Amino acid sequence: MANTRAYAAQSADSGLAPYNFERRALRDDDVAIEIDYCGVCHSDVHVVENDWGGSQYPVVPGHEIIGRVTAVGAAVTTYKTGDLVGVGCMVDSCRSCSACDTGLEQYCDEGMTATYGGIDRHDGSVTMGGYSDNIVVSERFVVRVPEKLDPASAAPLLCAGITTYSPLKHFNVGKGHKVGVLGMGGLGHMGVKFAKALGAEVTLFTRSESKVAEAKKQGADHVVVSTDRSQMKAVSNSFDFLLDTIPVAHDLNPYLKCLKHDGTHILVGLLSAIEPPVNAGLLLLKRRVIGGSLIGGMPETQEVLDFCAEHNITCDVEMLDIRDINDAYVRMKKGDVKYRFVIDMKTLKEG
Amino acid sequence: MANTRAYAAQSADSGLAPYNFERRALRDDDVAIEIDYCGVCHSDVHVVENDWGGSQYPVVPGHEIIGRVTAVGAAVTTYKTGDLVGVGCMVDSCRSCSACDTGLEQYCDEGMTATYGGIDRHDGSVTMGGYSDNIVVSERFVVRVPEKLDPASAAPLLCAGITTYSPLKHFNVGKGHKVGVLGMGGLGHMGVKFAKALGAEVTLFTRSESKVAEAKKQGADHVVVSTDRSQMKAVSNSFDFLLDTIPVAHDLNPYLKCLKHDGTHILVGLLSAIEPPVNAGLLLLKRRVIGGSLIGGMPETQEVLDFCAEHNITCDVEMLDIRDINDAYVRMKKGDVKYRFVIDMKTLKEG
Repeated sequence: MANTRAYAAQSADSGLAPYNFERRALRDDDVAIEIDYCGVCHSDVHVVENDWGGSQYPVVPGHEIIGRVTAVGAAVTTYKTGDLVGVGCMVDSCRSCSACDTGLEQYCDEGMTATYGGIDRHDGSVTMGGYSDNIVVSERFVVRVPEKLDPASAAPLLCAGITTYSPLKHFNVGKGHKVGVLGMGGLGHMGVKFAKALGAEVTLFTRSESKVAEAKKQGADHVVVSTDRSQMKAVSNSFDFLLDTIPVAHDLNPYLKCLKHDGTHILVGLLSAIEPPVNAGLLLLKRRVIGGSLIGGMPETQEVLDFCAEHNITCDVEMLDIRDINDAYVRMKKGDVKYRFVIDMKTLKEG
Repeated sequence: MANTRAYAAQSADSGLAPYNFERRALRDDDVAIEIDYCGVCHSDVHVVENDWGGSQYPVVPGHEIIGRVTAVGAAVTTYKTGDLVGVGCMVDSCRSCSACDTGLEQYCDEGMTATYGGIDRHDGSVTMGGYSDNIVVSERFVVRVPEKLDPASAAPLLCAGITTYSPLKHFNVGKGHKVGVLGMGGLGHMGVKFAKALGAEVTLFTRSESKVAEAKKQGADHVVVSTDRSQMKAVSNSFDFLLDTIPVAHDLNPYLKCLKHDGTHILVGLLSAIEPPVNAGLLLLKRRVIGGSLIGGMPETQEVLDFCAEHNITCDVEMLDIRDINDAYVRMKKGDVKYRFVIDMKTLKEG
């Protein structure tokens, strides 16, 4: 068992503070990883502050983990000491249902085991995430990080990246398609990059005129200010695919009108009720669909890293000293980060 | 121009009564049809009574039309006098957009021209439907009725049939799939027959215990009483596809829970707001989609007739004397028909 230095929240309003605990001893299929970088995801804030209910304290957040292998279990075949690897949002699943069998562990019939705040399937303990100097994960849930990628800015690919890449791939977005990306945060800016790299013509939808220049800098071909009715009308019936990263309730109906027949509107940021309600007529009259998508399976999480290495795609990040994590949460809640904080884990050793 | 005997509504509350008008002279691509049978669709009631607004009186309803060709325009190549043919919900479209180019005239960028209550693209007149002794339609919007089919019970295939067949085909429902059909009316009972014929295992969802035996008679392998929470729970995460024929607002959330990952919930009966609102989490956590589907394009409308001839599928109908049409509307509004009224147009000549 490895002594682990970490940052944890002890309650919904305690903030994060240094915390020590023991990682489990290596099982046969386990990989031990010394963590170099960990991205900071909005989910971290939600779980730390118990916004979704059910948080079990102490919470050690973090599911965008990059590090080096320090040891492997007896049965591990894929990784060896020194390998640069990543761990994303899940660390286990049943491994035998139809979803797991097809590499869609995130849709496991029994539910995936989350990287933090989940319940370990073997010993019943609560999982602890990547705001820590090491982690122990079954090799199936570890991915290889191409050495060509900058490891710090690769960290958010393990959540923000795969979350936006997976639906674009699943729904076969590519050359000749018109894709709209709704929202320009950590997920949205990755959505723009991926849709472009896949060959689509990309439009960023934003409520804010102030984001137009930034969206174009990120690679968007066009920007539509969604609060401007004439701009919305000008793009009606024209999109094949909308990637909706908006994390709060919003009216889908004006966006649905922008889809042409057989167009697809995919939600990746919303977990609550779709309010105001969708007008079913907008679906029927053009055979449009609305769906949702959750991160990606393990094969596709490997694929997104390889894709990013091939296309020179990284997340725009701001490096963070872990001692500033509570301030970073305050800034994130205001949307004041372009586009993802990544903790440099060296600062944990210094702290 | 052909003198036409018909039944029409003169206002939202007048009921239907005998009415005479002139059909247009044949254009080069037109087919003149003597109507033998016309199905009675719920839409007929809605348009006659102006439930959706915008009805233009007089309204001659009817878009499930079966008859014999009596004359053809100079450029018609597909049909000749004496052929048994059908006309469904549309009689024209722009014929040049990407939807029309791919045989999806129902999703025409300019909007399809409805068989009745639509505006003719050439002369601006209001279209008049099949509660009449003849109709004139461009050959592209005419289908051939296999002589093997009983023509009276084939009539509803042109709306109720194609409406349920098209989404099952589009979403590749077939052998090995578990399909749920929601609602057991004109659409629902056709959905059960098609899903079975396509090789799926079919479950009928109904609120009413009284429909269990009837659903099995129609071919359903299983019946779930949707108001029984334990029955619903027993089928959670188990369906690939739900065909939702319910024409009034209803809670989709309990049904979404019945879909497994990547499952699809298709609405064919609802045109209003989806209330109560859908929980987006149910979409994201299993990559489920909700969509809608509208009738079918002309190639697929031909296909459904051929499919029915091959698989001996017809709609269950109750034959109607057109003089009883107002009583039939009252019965339809009570759901008192198994499953579709079809007007025997001989009764118009007698009337």
